[in-house]
Amino acid sequence: MSTVAPPPDPEADPRVKAVFDDIRATRKSDFINNMWLWLAFDPDLLERTWAEVKTVMAMPSPLDPLMKEMLYIAVSVTNGCGYCIHSHTAAAKVKGMTDAEHADLMRVISLAAKTNQLAMALQVPVDTVFDASGETKASERPA
Amino acid sequence: MSTVAPPPDPEADPRVKAVFDDIRATRKSDFINNMWLWLAFDPDLLERTWAEVKTVMAMPSPLDPLMKEMLYIAVSVTNGCGYCIHSHTAAAKVKGMTDAEHADLMRVISLAAKTNQLAMALQVPVDTVFDASGETKASERPA
Amino acid sequence: MSTVAPPPDPEADPRVKAVFDDIRATRKSDFINNMWLWLAFDPDLLERTWAEVKTVMAMPSPLDPLMKEMLYIAVSVTNGCGYCIHSHTAAAKVKGMTDAEHADLMRVISLAAKTNQLAMALQVPVDTVFDASGETKASERPA
Amino acid sequence: MSTVAPPPDPEADPRVKAVFDDIRATRKSDFINNMWLWLAFDPDLLERTWAEVKTVMAMPSPLDPLMKEMLYIAVSVTNGCGYCIHSHTAAAKVKGMTDAEHADLMRVISLAAKTNQLAMALQVPVDTVFDASGETKASERPA
Amino acid sequence: MSTVAPPPDPEADPRVKAVFDDIRATRKSDFINNMWLWLAFDPDLLERTWAEVKTVMAMPSPLDPLMKEMLYIAVSVTNGCGYCIHSHTAAAKVKGMTDAEHADLMRVISLAAKTNQLAMALQVPVDTVFDASGETKASERPA
Amino acid sequence: MSTVAPPPDPEADPRVKAVFDDIRATRKSDFINNMWLWLAFDPDLLERTWAEVKTVMAMPSPLDPLMKEMLYIAVSVTNGCGYCIHSHTAAAKVKGMTDAEHADLMRVISLAAKTNQLAMALQVPVDTVFDASGETKASERPA
Repeated sequence: MSTVAPPPDPEADPRVKAVFDDIRATRKSDFINNMWLWLAFDPDLLERTWAEVKTVMAMPSPLDPLMKEMLYIAVSVTNGCGYCIHSHTAAAKVKGMTDAEHADLMRVISLAAKTNQLAMALQVPVDTVFDASGETKASERPA
Repeated sequence: MSTVAPPPDPEADPRVKAVFDDIRATRKSDFINNMWLWLAFDPDLLERTWAEVKTVMAMPSPLDPLMKEMLYIAVSVTNGCGYCIHSHTAAAKVKGMTDAEHADLMRVISLAAKTNQLAMALQVPVDTVFDASGETKASERPA
Repeated sequence: MSTVAPPPDPEADPRVKAVFDDIRATRKSDFINNMWLWLAFDPDLLERTWAEVKTVMAMPSPLDPLMKEMLYIAVSVTNGCGYCIHSHTAAAKVKGMTDAEHADLMRVISLAAKTNQLAMALQVPVDTVFDASGETKASERPA
Repeated sequence: MSTVAPPPDPEADPRVKAVFDDIRATRKSDFINNMWLWLAFDPDLLERTWAEVKTVMAMPSPLDPLMKEMLYIAVSVTNGCGYCIHSHTAAAKVKGMTDAEHADLMRVISLAAKTNQLAMALQVPVDTVFDASGETKASERPA
Repeated sequence: MSTVAPPPDPEADPRVKAVFDDIRATRKSDFINNMWLWLAFDPDLLERTWAEVKTVMAMPSPLDPLMKEMLYIAVSVTNGCGYCIHSHTAAAKVKGMTDAEHADLMRVISLAAKTNQLAMALQVPVDTVFDASGETKASERPA
Repeated sequence: MSTVAPPPDPEADPRVKAVFDDIRATRKSDFINNMWLWLAFDPDLLERTWAEVKTVMAMPSPLDPLMKEMLYIAVSVTNGCGYCIHSHTAAAKVKGMTDAEHADLMRVISLAAKTNQLAMALQVPVDTVFDASGETKASERPA
């Protein structure tokens, strides 16, 4: 059940077809997942979103592709987005995430959720040494 | 401004002193950041929290220490925890995060926030091929 | 699957019947959606919630009814409330939201989610000119 | 720094004065906290909000007043609302919350944040026995 | 549909069996809910999570067991974790939560969500009297 | 206090200068707010973010500019992003938001937060008539 109807024949629209063709070429797979089918209700939204995802996930980067998927999972879990958790966990497995890495990801992100809750609850003031902006004078920093 | 007062002389309590000594030894630094000073209002809470953080962040792991800090940042940003964002960004820099890696982290987690919002808004149904639980029959999966 | 059982014959309770009658009269429709059926497990909670929704959504207002539904969608998507996203998207369509408006709503709220994530991650300090409270002296404001 | 200016002389408006008088009488204290000063920018919003808070927090209830404040803290911490965390923690202390209770509150709500994150990440399906709505057939329930 | 497959015969692993036996003994019930079946994909994660839940929920505490479950519900609802909302609402009912208490819980946590939203939107500055950390001078505090 | 240092002389970098010049031209103002100064730590991130904000907020759209700012506020408040709440509230005022509209925005988004919490807590099932995806058969829809 969803809030828009994906077009019955999305590739009848040449803009949609061009994006789908690029998804298939980029991923070397015929499979188009639902996110793109649904976004096809508005070709402009589909084009912009795919262009951005392709660029950010595939551009030369100091972060390797699996790490990016894990970061995506961390954000998606914290936001509670079921679709995103499923699709990026699947993508991380395709990129080689092992069960041991998956379990370790769980340990880190669940611990982060817990200590976030504690720091928030106590309203712990930020240590001035953590300031990177230059607003804190050098003399206040530890040797 | 915070919701509890850190003890005026926290290390007068031997349980607090033991934790602080372990923090200093583990990190090879005399610096105790505010999170631990504030948690010292309850020695049991301090002990349990430090034990867990130390174990999860330092145990032999398929994820390297910098990656763990970046995952911590991803969760903390999504939760909007200012203290946690500051402390784990500082920690990531200590562990070698470059400006280019920091910027790339921004690209990935801000894109994730955006596509999370889209998938949520459209209530896109999860593709059955993303199911890892065995509930989806093999015949429904792509070849 | 839910956490309370809606009453088997909700309108047997005169307080519930009065609310349901008012919902039908206000909306000029016989349809009672699940939110109200489920809230009927506690007539007081039902009465208060309906009274507030009716007042806020229908009172003379500088915001038009469609805009209010779009704001409701924006909050519901950000909170990740599936029921709310579905019901208010349906309501917005009843009030005339076109596909183009829907797509534009997606563009704005997904961009907002993204730049929120960036501002949070960098912990950008608030410009003093954005202060409306009078705490910032006039001399600090730009000409 | 805030997004609206509280009125310079809020009690010059008789509607605001009436609410402030009721706050003072209800709480047996002359202190008006900032939340109410700021809401006074719109007397209608002030009246409605105070009426609702007063009713819900003071009405005869199966939950005692301290428990209500702790629930308020739990929600506020999870939402990351600094003002709310401060004001309701202060209110809980006025209603008798001890340091031991405060620490235990921290244990429970931080554990909840952690296990929430795990259940989300694994997308654990809900057990049918947890269904209270009557949709699950009796035969599927455990003896 | 979920992101990991629970093991087909989880108790074949002696570490999993030991945890499941302890869950059954602690709860005096043969029922193992899905959370634990799914966590069994990694015995270490299962052991640590159960150990922590058992300790925090069962340790001698100033908060009674029902109150802890209600706090758990408050956090889970605010995080939007469906599994957690279902399992802890069911647990609260087992511990005696009545319909009247459930409805009152709804009143408090939905009001908290609302006033959180207002305090956030107005960016109300925190009153200095709410400061528990000792950073605010005594002279600034009310008599 | 923030997690990156804005460059001391940002416009020494021609890519940064080009973006800042475009911001000034687009807004017909010399003022560059902190968000852009901070993003200048990575020119690529600055360029992409500004290009997207400019396009989405300024493109011909069925939504008027003030409405877009209000939607931005709704998302920012729900995410708890202080910087974003401040900057978009200021922008909405520049685009003509009156105090009455501001107060009405507060009424709608705080009510949305409250009813989101209720729908989540009860786990109300989505009515099939709200389905826009075509998955629900026509016969299940009301006449």
